[in-house]
Amino acid sequence: MSGEQRARVDALLRQNRSAGHPTLEELRARFRALMAGMIVPDGIRTRTTELGGRSALLVEPETGARAGTILYFHGGGWVFGSPETALSLTGNLVARTGFRAYSTDYRLAPENPFPAAVQDGLNAYRALLDDGVDPTTIAFAGDSAGGGLAVTTCLTARDAGLPLPAAIVAFSSALDATLTGESMETKAGVDPVFTREALDGISTLYLSGQEPLQPLLSPAVLADLTGFPPLLLQVGTNEVLLDDSTRMAARATAHGVDVILDVTADVPHVFQSFAGVLDEADEALDRAALFLAQRVRARDTAAA
Amino acid sequence: MSGEQRARVDALLRQNRSAGHPTLEELRARFRALMAGMIVPDGIRTRTTELGGRSALLVEPETGARAGTILYFHGGGWVFGSPETALSLTGNLVARTGFRAYSTDYRLAPENPFPAAVQDGLNAYRALLDDGVDPTTIAFAGDSAGGGLAVTTCLTARDAGLPLPAAIVAFSSALDATLTGESMETKAGVDPVFTREALDGISTLYLSGQEPLQPLLSPAVLADLTGFPPLLLQVGTNEVLLDDSTRMAARATAHGVDVILDVTADVPHVFQSFAGVLDEADEALDRAALFLAQRVRARDTAAA
Repeated sequence: MSGEQRARVDALLRQNRSAGHPTLEELRARFRALMAGMIVPDGIRTRTTELGGRSALLVEPETGARAGTILYFHGGGWVFGSPETALSLTGNLVARTGFRAYSTDYRLAPENPFPAAVQDGLNAYRALLDDGVDPTTIAFAGDSAGGGLAVTTCLTARDAGLPLPAAIVAFSSALDATLTGESMETKAGVDPVFTREALDGISTLYLSGQEPLQPLLSPAVLADLTGFPPLLLQVGTNEVLLDDSTRMAARATAHGVDVILDVTADVPHVFQSFAGVLDEADEALDRAALFLAQRVRARDTAAA
Repeated sequence: MSGEQRARVDALLRQNRSAGHPTLEELRARFRALMAGMIVPDGIRTRTTELGGRSALLVEPETGARAGTILYFHGGGWVFGSPETALSLTGNLVARTGFRAYSTDYRLAPENPFPAAVQDGLNAYRALLDDGVDPTTIAFAGDSAGGGLAVTTCLTARDAGLPLPAAIVAFSSALDATLTGESMETKAGVDPVFTREALDGISTLYLSGQEPLQPLLSPAVLADLTGFPPLLLQVGTNEVLLDDSTRMAARATAHGVDVILDVTADVPHVFQSFAGVLDEADEALDRAALFLAQRVRARDTAAA
């Protein structure tokens, strides 16, 4: 059963992989269509709101949230996507933890290259703090490029002297804009989503001529992670981005950070999106929810 | 609070660290006394039994077990320890999963050097299979040297053509008898339990002149892990053994194995023994229990 599930998932992803030379708007539409097929769990409600000067999607349990807050960064290579395209992931974290989530609609490249998205992430976090939300009740989470933004927003917050969130959950994260992980080569044949060339094309839009070898673009390669909150890195083995997570875990360990590197065999990029279809997705989300419940000091008192 | 807990744990462990030149029996008694101080959870019952030609401690939920079976390998450097010294760990896994556990009283060095312990592990596993226990309902687990035995018993079972267990849980495992991990040096100042020299002394007894660079002694360095079941490696950053787990995780990932490397910052060797005292211990055991629940296909039908 699981093998059949996986084959279906791979076929769906390969079908979506860019062929020919689609325009940026075609790529964005294709990504919207792919992600619209993901299952959004029952028991949540959503509302568009504003956070730190940008639109955000507030995702809450229908029955009212416990006082934990997830600041979510959607995936899409800094170029595609929106809070809506990540709603399955965000909704599954909310449904499993009972926390609320703000999924930020950070600015995208190429219209707004690096560091616009990181600045938007920092502004969103600062807005939560300004609203009186206790940072020990906040976690950052994200997938793919958004997992990278969860990490780099935390780096920026630390360097700005802000109190840090309680935890970071990062799914199949992009953590190295230099694209130097060994898995760029070793996983090229099994990744149904990306090739190094495709990532290079996306990164080029985000970089807009800027040097990739800097901590906010390649944290797995050279960020100082001192003082970082506990970090959960989930990744599949069928990903050219695998070693972004393995190197980040090694770096976090070297810097004395609590880190869980959670590698699922034979699944593709952001396999957690296939919750409800792929057993591995639901199991990984359950582990992420336990991690969040352990790290985020949810309180009964209302916050913000 | 957690800082104070940790200081107490470290002081207790340092106090136990060998000073002078105790005899083997003094060391064994000292280890028994240390481990007798660990908290055994409520809700379990124990019975001495036999499994594969060796004594074993059967640990079960008082209310009756679900049909999952843990084959547990106690720690103690292949030289000390018994199922009783690991009862806090085994009991906590049983209490949290509802599975039963057989904690095997494998033969110890120097009286019985390598590969006696691995042979006993294989005999215990084979006895479970011969009793009709479905391997998809079995997990291997162990701490320290016992974590190493969980891994090497699985290697031996695979090479013997046996069906493999559903999962392996390994706490602060000894996975490299060559003692070549970088953490042997980098963590020398913060490990309250071991030094490289102390490990060398213990390993010498287990090796009894045999070459350490072989898969059943140094699986993190050179074992072929192809076909291995999902693996949970938990380890603290205050351990000279840290890199036994980090290298094992990298190796498992390279061999396409499901692996979770779960690193807790600023805690010592087999910190899970301090369940009930140290928050990190209980949280790590909760994560291990979720991993076991996800991997072991517990069934309502009685087995064995």
